[in-house]
Amino acid sequence: MSSLAERKARLIVHGDRPYNAEPPLARLRAAYRTPAEDFYVRSHGDLPDLDPDTWRLAVEGGDGAARALSLHDLRTRFPQVTVTATLQCAGNRRADMRAVAPVSGDPWDAGAIGTAAWTGVRLGDLLRAAGVTEGADLHVAFESHDRVDGRPYGASIPLAKAMAPETLLAYAMNGEALLPEHGFPVRAVVPGFAGVRSPKWLRRLAVRDRPSDNPIQAEDYKLYPPDVGAETADPARGHTIDTMPLNAAICEPERGAALRAGRTRVRGYAVSGDRAIVRVDVSGNGGRSWRQADLEHAAGAPFAWTFWAVELDLPPGEHELAVRAWDAAGQTQPALPDDTWNHKGYLCACWHRVRVSVAAARIDGAIPGAHD
Amino acid sequence: MSSLAERKARLIVHGDRPYNAEPPLARLRAAYRTPAEDFYVRSHGDLPDLDPDTWRLAVEGGDGAARALSLHDLRTRFPQVTVTATLQCAGNRRADMRAVAPVSGDPWDAGAIGTAAWTGVRLGDLLRAAGVTEGADLHVAFESHDRVDGRPYGASIPLAKAMAPETLLAYAMNGEALLPEHGFPVRAVVPGFAGVRSPKWLRRLAVRDRPSDNPIQAEDYKLYPPDVGAETADPARGHTIDTMPLNAAICEPERGAALRAGRTRVRGYAVSGDRAIVRVDVSGNGGRSWRQADLEHAAGAPFAWTFWAVELDLPPGEHELAVRAWDAAGQTQPALPDDTWNHKGYLCACWHRVRVSVAAARIDGAIPGAHD
Repeated sequence: MSSLAERKARLIVHGDRPYNAEPPLARLRAAYRTPAEDFYVRSHGDLPDLDPDTWRLAVEGGDGAARALSLHDLRTRFPQVTVTATLQCAGNRRADMRAVAPVSGDPWDAGAIGTAAWTGVRLGDLLRAAGVTEGADLHVAFESHDRVDGRPYGASIPLAKAMAPETLLAYAMNGEALLPEHGFPVRAVVPGFAGVRSPKWLRRLAVRDRPSDNPIQAEDYKLYPPDVGAETADPARGHTIDTMPLNAAICEPERGAALRAGRTRVRGYAVSGDRAIVRVDVSGNGGRSWRQADLEHAAGAPFAWTFWAVELDLPPGEHELAVRAWDAAGQTQPALPDDTWNHKGYLCACWHRVRVSVAAARIDGAIPGAHD
Repeated sequence: MSSLAERKARLIVHGDRPYNAEPPLARLRAAYRTPAEDFYVRSHGDLPDLDPDTWRLAVEGGDGAARALSLHDLRTRFPQVTVTATLQCAGNRRADMRAVAPVSGDPWDAGAIGTAAWTGVRLGDLLRAAGVTEGADLHVAFESHDRVDGRPYGASIPLAKAMAPETLLAYAMNGEALLPEHGFPVRAVVPGFAGVRSPKWLRRLAVRDRPSDNPIQAEDYKLYPPDVGAETADPARGHTIDTMPLNAAICEPERGAALRAGRTRVRGYAVSGDRAIVRVDVSGNGGRSWRQADLEHAAGAPFAWTFWAVELDLPPGEHELAVRAWDAAGQTQPALPDDTWNHKGYLCACWHRVRVSVAAARIDGAIPGAHD
């Protein structure tokens, strides 16, 4: 295994403590399943260093009994399943929201996202074994080993999502044990929800009659209208961010690329929290006209991203490429970030735009014999 | 029971054969559960006149065996359930799309929608009793007693949706037997999907390895990009309309209303195929600024609409009211119909706009004693 320092050197690092980093977009688009060392890292405290042999998960189910499960228990008491799913930070593409007005938080580009084959156990299997039954308006609260402002990281998800077949407690990513920065030895994977609801370095989970009262759940990661600022924001009135919106990004060419004349390959990803992607439009002129891209769907759809590609003939000059996706309900993305702007910079999902320049074509041989 | 002619007289009739009609919007907003005689009617052929005593539903399950179920069988062999759900036509609000370019089909206003408490049996219960098991990439094809261009009406839904707890075969609406125009004696109710997938006057259902080849399923009710016209549309490349998009409408005041000065109550509905409505914004100035409306959620959410209301202080003059909703994934509606325009006029879901005029206030008593 490479060292953490080596892996950091591969990424665009937004902060060291806590460690937050994302890959360059062209590398992100290179593989449908993102290699673990290219997968974005979002942490809220120092990375825990846990011993897998002594690690235990405390489980408080519906019956009041407390249980402690070892890694061996997870591997042997429940069916092992693998789900290919995309995880992304609620702040993915936050940098694009700054065009409207300043926002707080790290200026993520479109790389705070990744897709992996996650292997572990269904959280629903574990909960049913702990006596939990579906249907009631309950929540599953997670607590982790990392610490934020002196207390453990905590978040919760509705019981219905915890019981859904795509929701896992994962101990492997793309067939290997989790890396320390991705939650070793065990993390939650809640496909379609913002990454904040997939805690890493798990230590405890409990079924409760209300969402977690941890500040991560109760105060942070709330969505507000544009007219609510940091001073006036009332967390009780903010919308808790769970399901992620329809989004798409151009990964190639990169921003500011100087291209040669001729056909330009444009590639990227499209993603929706819980709906299939049915169409991706790409523009070479800032959205005045569009071409439909070819789509590469996953077995994991709708919980895994869709890769797309198209070739454009761009004349010499400056161009603004743009992409917008369409979901299975016929909805698409807004052109601009203005209406969805919020002071924390969450859920930026307007058209992704990339400016490029195309050099004038060299007309080799235009004057026959001129170079002879 | 009132006569069909009496009920027609209550509605805005777009066509008589087939019979298509919608209620005025203010009446639609008067009750959370739409009375059956105010519920929009969309039919593709003449209304069948069926005898409930001899009616049978042919069921072809996964085991090749054919079954015929009577109304008595449905009522006695399966648990009776009631689901409050919204149904709407894929062409709801089609009239608003004509601002961009002509579209085919009836010019529905925002009333091709309604919400009812549907009572019947879970389609999943019936399918499981017929030996169907979940998981495979299968479809449930319906066939009905009404005829379109000489063949029975037919449509299909994916097996996963057929097995979902919200999907019913319904024999009652708001506690009464279905009216003839709503599918007596038994119809499908597929919450969240376009109404076309909830066939009325059922006669047969079959589990198949592909969608129904009936023209209603295979050719009609497909979504195309704006640059595809009636002549170039290839149904195999169109997107099959199932889940309905986020939408909202102003039901009061009505278009062109002449209002008195003072506080104006603005009310309407918001709806999303399969996501909760978390916010509704209302504008008194065409979208330059917004007020958040109060929301009245249903027990049936996300499969039943959300009613909303707000009071605006409108000064004398002409005003354009507008409404936009936000779903649980942080997505909202487009301002204009341009990007979603399609030649069949489906899924119109841009901001709903209503122009009103407010009279100058009469200043009674402004000169004390003047009238004495």
